[in-house]
Amino acid sequence: MSTGAGRLIGVGVGPGDPQLLTLKAVRALASAAVVAYFAKAGRDSHARAIAADHLPSGTIELPLKYPVTTELPKDGAGYRDAIGSFYDGAAAKIAAHLDAGLTVAVLCEGDPLFYGSYMHMHVRLAPRFESEIVAGVSGMAGCWSAAAMPIAQGDDVFTVLPATLGEAELSRRLADTDAAVVMKIGGHLPKLRRALNASGRLARALYVERGTMAEAKIVPLAAKCDDEAPYFAVVLLPGWAQRP
Amino acid sequence: MSTGAGRLIGVGVGPGDPQLLTLKAVRALASAAVVAYFAKAGRDSHARAIAADHLPSGTIELPLKYPVTTELPKDGAGYRDAIGSFYDGAAAKIAAHLDAGLTVAVLCEGDPLFYGSYMHMHVRLAPRFESEIVAGVSGMAGCWSAAAMPIAQGDDVFTVLPATLGEAELSRRLADTDAAVVMKIGGHLPKLRRALNASGRLARALYVERGTMAEAKIVPLAAKCDDEAPYFAVVLLPGWAQRP
Repeated sequence: MSTGAGRLIGVGVGPGDPQLLTLKAVRALASAAVVAYFAKAGRDSHARAIAADHLPSGTIELPLKYPVTTELPKDGAGYRDAIGSFYDGAAAKIAAHLDAGLTVAVLCEGDPLFYGSYMHMHVRLAPRFESEIVAGVSGMAGCWSAAAMPIAQGDDVFTVLPATLGEAELSRRLADTDAAVVMKIGGHLPKLRRALNASGRLARALYVERGTMAEAKIVPLAAKCDDEAPYFAVVLLPGWAQRP
Repeated sequence: MSTGAGRLIGVGVGPGDPQLLTLKAVRALASAAVVAYFAKAGRDSHARAIAADHLPSGTIELPLKYPVTTELPKDGAGYRDAIGSFYDGAAAKIAAHLDAGLTVAVLCEGDPLFYGSYMHMHVRLAPRFESEIVAGVSGMAGCWSAAAMPIAQGDDVFTVLPATLGEAELSRRLADTDAAVVMKIGGHLPKLRRALNASGRLARALYVERGTMAEAKIVPLAAKCDDEAPYFAVVLLPGWAQRP
């Protein structure tokens, strides 16, 4: 850790409700001279919107805009090179502020180290600068709380699955766990529905869209008549089959 | 939902650091006339200690003391009957306050619906009373944040496993996931160590004890020379094998 240099803080801002920021996150934002956040090209940052009320006036803002890489296949070398270069560049921008002795807070939806972009900055910068993680409420906890659905209990096995997995693989894993959250649904919903049906889990599955927003949509998946779903929709499969 | 009756709030107080309470949790505690919390017989409530600074003076406290059931096997009918009766009685005590029109906050370490005791109250009371869940930072997020260990990324499969599983089952599941958290370690550590070794995951496993406390102990499991572990220790197995 260099001395005299600035401090890097990965700040979890929670699943969407600004009231689900932690006291520690609020304090971190108040202490930071620079606030950085990722955003898709042409979109506002969701993390910044969540934290907006807690950014002191005078905070330097550092938006990190993802390159438009939708024309590249995600599993190809072209995509990996483009996104790797983007992360290198973003880390360099943050490092410039840290080298100037400033505290930089990187806003993270949910929790910084659980499926978030912050960790790409962390692995590049933590070896060189003092750093801290402020844990956050995860997006999925926001979803099962909004649905008031006990998700896992006792000796349940709990699994997080990306809907990008193949149908047979999804089906096998759904049958092999007590409780699950399936993420990144989007266009994969018809396949996921078949996998839940094949694993005997469709009747218990709950579909959640915009879980912690005012316009949340929470319905049993079996009762959802269409296969439209945004990328950030999740399906919850509750465990806790044996209730004392 | 009955009208005129009180309101039940399951309040996640996070993994241990009082600064990891959310703004929403603080607000809920300020609004509650009654604060209930579970505690083991003869022990103080950890959740109450976490929230102590945010309980207004004059709050009615309702400790719910677990019966001493250690003499009963956990998978036996005797244990299930005893713990079921205890939850029934605890819910009745809370219901008495709700019937009197009071708001009751039930304190939950971590997140209320993720491996917590609150859900036993929720399923008994939510059908009769207005209720709300305040999501919290999970205990495991507190652990991987304290360890500054990115746990899962991209299309990783993430699994939570209780160390109570059999050795072969643990080994199979550890080999079949990208990232994992193993909970409830205690006396199961030698078995878990063998299962991690058999699944080729021992070298990456991190042992975390009292993750979010000042006296946290965080060491690679392979470098931990003894097999002593408290019940609430966890082992983290990071995913994210393919970093762009």
